[in-house]
Amino acid sequence: MKLHVVILAGGSGTRFWPLSRASRPKQLMSVFGGDSMLQRTVSRVLPLAPVQVLVVTNAAQKDETERQVRQCAGTVPITVVAEPVGRNTAPAIGLAAAMVSAVDPAGLMLVLPADHFIADEDEFRATVLRGCHAAEERVLVTMGIVPTSPETGYGYIEAGGSGAGCARLVRRFVEKPPYEDALNYLASGSYYWNSGMFIWRADVIRQELRRYMPDLDSALAQVGAVAADNARLPELLAQAYAAIPSQSIDYGVLERSERVVVIPASFGWSDVGSWNALPEVLPADDSGNVVVAAAGTILIDAPDNILHAPDKMVALIGVKDLVVVDTKDALLVARRERCQEVRKVVDQLALRGLDSYL
Amino acid sequence: MKLHVVILAGGSGTRFWPLSRASRPKQLMSVFGGDSMLQRTVSRVLPLAPVQVLVVTNAAQKDETERQVRQCAGTVPITVVAEPVGRNTAPAIGLAAAMVSAVDPAGLMLVLPADHFIADEDEFRATVLRGCHAAEERVLVTMGIVPTSPETGYGYIEAGGSGAGCARLVRRFVEKPPYEDALNYLASGSYYWNSGMFIWRADVIRQELRRYMPDLDSALAQVGAVAADNARLPELLAQAYAAIPSQSIDYGVLERSERVVVIPASFGWSDVGSWNALPEVLPADDSGNVVVAAAGTILIDAPDNILHAPDKMVALIGVKDLVVVDTKDALLVARRERCQEVRKVVDQLALRGLDSYL
Repeated sequence: MKLHVVILAGGSGTRFWPLSRASRPKQLMSVFGGDSMLQRTVSRVLPLAPVQVLVVTNAAQKDETERQVRQCAGTVPITVVAEPVGRNTAPAIGLAAAMVSAVDPAGLMLVLPADHFIADEDEFRATVLRGCHAAEERVLVTMGIVPTSPETGYGYIEAGGSGAGCARLVRRFVEKPPYEDALNYLASGSYYWNSGMFIWRADVIRQELRRYMPDLDSALAQVGAVAADNARLPELLAQAYAAIPSQSIDYGVLERSERVVVIPASFGWSDVGSWNALPEVLPADDSGNVVVAAAGTILIDAPDNILHAPDKMVALIGVKDLVVVDTKDALLVARRERCQEVRKVVDQLALRGLDSYL
Repeated sequence: MKLHVVILAGGSGTRFWPLSRASRPKQLMSVFGGDSMLQRTVSRVLPLAPVQVLVVTNAAQKDETERQVRQCAGTVPITVVAEPVGRNTAPAIGLAAAMVSAVDPAGLMLVLPADHFIADEDEFRATVLRGCHAAEERVLVTMGIVPTSPETGYGYIEAGGSGAGCARLVRRFVEKPPYEDALNYLASGSYYWNSGMFIWRADVIRQELRRYMPDLDSALAQVGAVAADNARLPELLAQAYAAIPSQSIDYGVLERSERVVVIPASFGWSDVGSWNALPEVLPADDSGNVVVAAAGTILIDAPDNILHAPDKMVALIGVKDLVVVDTKDALLVARRERCQEVRKVVDQLALRGLDSYL
C-alpha cells in the first residue's frame, strides 16, 4: 500500500529576507548549504517506500520546485501542482485529498510543510509509521512535538485521554500562548507543539471537509478527477479557487472535528521561523556564533551572532546578538530579538516598488 | 615665485579596511564619492598658483598615484617619486627637500599629508599664505589646528610667545594626551592639534636636517641632484634608503630645532583616522546615521550608525553605534568605538596569508 506524501510548498518566506526572495522562498533555499529544505523534506520520506509524492506549490515557484524535487526523488512518482493563488492550508490540503482519492480513495496521506527542520530522521519515520497505524482507525492524526522549552512562537495542542495505540485524543488547539502559559504547558505533559504535519486517509479527510467546509469540498470535487498533467487543469483550478476563501486546516477542520488525535513526536523539530532560529538547526561555535561565511572570517570579541554571508570574508568586532545576512544585492544587520521585523523591510520595499529586492 | 607642494602619499591605510587595501590605501580611495582624498589634496592647492607638485609615494602605489594626480592637476607640473621602502616622514621630507633645492634652493615647500579632510578650502589657502610669509623669515612653520574638542587621538603643539606675523613660537610637542590633559589644552588657548602640515624654505629645512639628522642628509645629498625621470633614480634611492632608519620629522627635527613656529589654523580639519571619524566629514541624517548605500536602504529604529555599502541595498533593524562596511569580497561589522581594531583584522589576515583581503 502506497503512502501519499503531500508536501505543502507554497510559502513566500519573507522571514528569511534577504536570502529568501519571492522567486526563492525559504523551502527552495539552501539555508544550511547543500540540499534545499524542500529537497530534505522529500529525501526524508523516501525510505518510507512505497511512496508517491504530491507537491502543492504556486505558479511562480512551480518550475524550480519541480526541478528540485526531481533532482532528489529518484524513481519515485512525483506530481507537482500549482495553486492559482495561495489560500492557506485548507484549500491546498483539500486539493491534494481530491487528487489522491481520485486514484486511491482509501489511501493514506502524510501532509508535510516543505520548510521544517528535523534532526532525527529515523525517529521521524518511526513516528510517521505509528501515525499511519493510528490513521487506519479513521482518525485525523496530528504530529505533536513534545515541547523542550516554553516556546511562545508556536501553537499548542492539548491532549486528553488516550486514543488508538500511542495516539492521544485532542482536547483543544491553543494559539501562540503568553510566556506564563507556555511554562505551564511545558510542565504539564499534556501539551504539544502543533507541527503542521498530519496523517489521515483521503476518504476520512474528505468526509470531514464535506462536513465542516462543504463549499471547499464541492469547489474542488471536479478538479480532483482531472489528471495533474491535463492541459485544462490550470483553468479548472482558477475557477475553483476564485470561490474559495483563505482558511487554515486547523481552523477549518481540526478544531471542529471530533476524530482528531495527536501522536507525540520527539525527533528534534523546528519550523525555522526566522533567522533567530538558526542556532536550533546549525551548530554554534564555542562563542555561540552560527557562522556561514568565507574562509578567513575573523570574530573579535563578538559572541552569539548569526552570520550568513557565504561569499564574503567577514570581520565582526565587539558586536553581540546580531543577525548579519549578506547577499549579492542586499545586506541585513539586525538585533536577533528583532529579526522578525524583516517583514517590515519587505513591506516597505513592496510599497516603494523596489521589486528587485523582493 | 613658485610654491613647491610636497604631498606625502605613502600611507598603507589599514584603518579603513575593508575599503582601503594595500593597493588602494585611504588617500587613493573615494571615501566620499567622487575624487579621492589625494585628488582633493591636489585640487585644493591649485588656486595657490604658481605651484608645482611633488608627490612622494611607494612603488606599489606609484602608477595609480600618478594617474590620479595627472587627472586633476591640469597643466601644473607634477613629479611623482616612489620611495623604495617607507621610513616615516623624515626621509620622505628629506628626499623632497633635496629634490626641490636642486632646482630652487631657496624655494618654499608646503608639506601636506594626502589623506586629510579640510572643510573650508579658502581659509586653508589663506592660512597657507600666512605660513609662507612667516617661512620667509627662515623658520619652520607648522600648521596648528585650533582645537574644537578635547581630542585624545591627536598630538598637540604648545605655543609660547609670538613669532613673526601671526606665527607663535613653539614651546613643545605633546604626544596624544590623556582626556584630562586634553580638556586643559582645549581651555588654555595655547595648544594646537599637530596637523602634519608644514611650510618652510628648502634651504632652511636642509640646514636643520644637516644639523639634527646628518646621516639622513648625507644619504640623500646625491639623490636630490638626479632628475626624477632619470633611469638610475630607483637604484640610487634603494642604496640611500638601505642606510636610513625610520623616523618622523617631528622627532627628528621639529622637537629639537629652535626655529619652529606654529600658525593657528581654523579651516575644519580632520585626519579621518578611522571609520568612526566619518561623521566629521560626511553629513549625518536626522537619526545620526552616515549612510553611503544603494537606493532603497531601510533603517528601522537604527540611530548613530556609519554605513558604507555603495553597491548594496541595506536594512538595519534595531542596531545602534555600528560601523558597517561592505565591499565586493569582505564585510566589516564593528562597534563604532572599537573600529580602530580593524588593524587587528588586517594583522590576522596577513598572519594567515590571506593576502587577497589585504
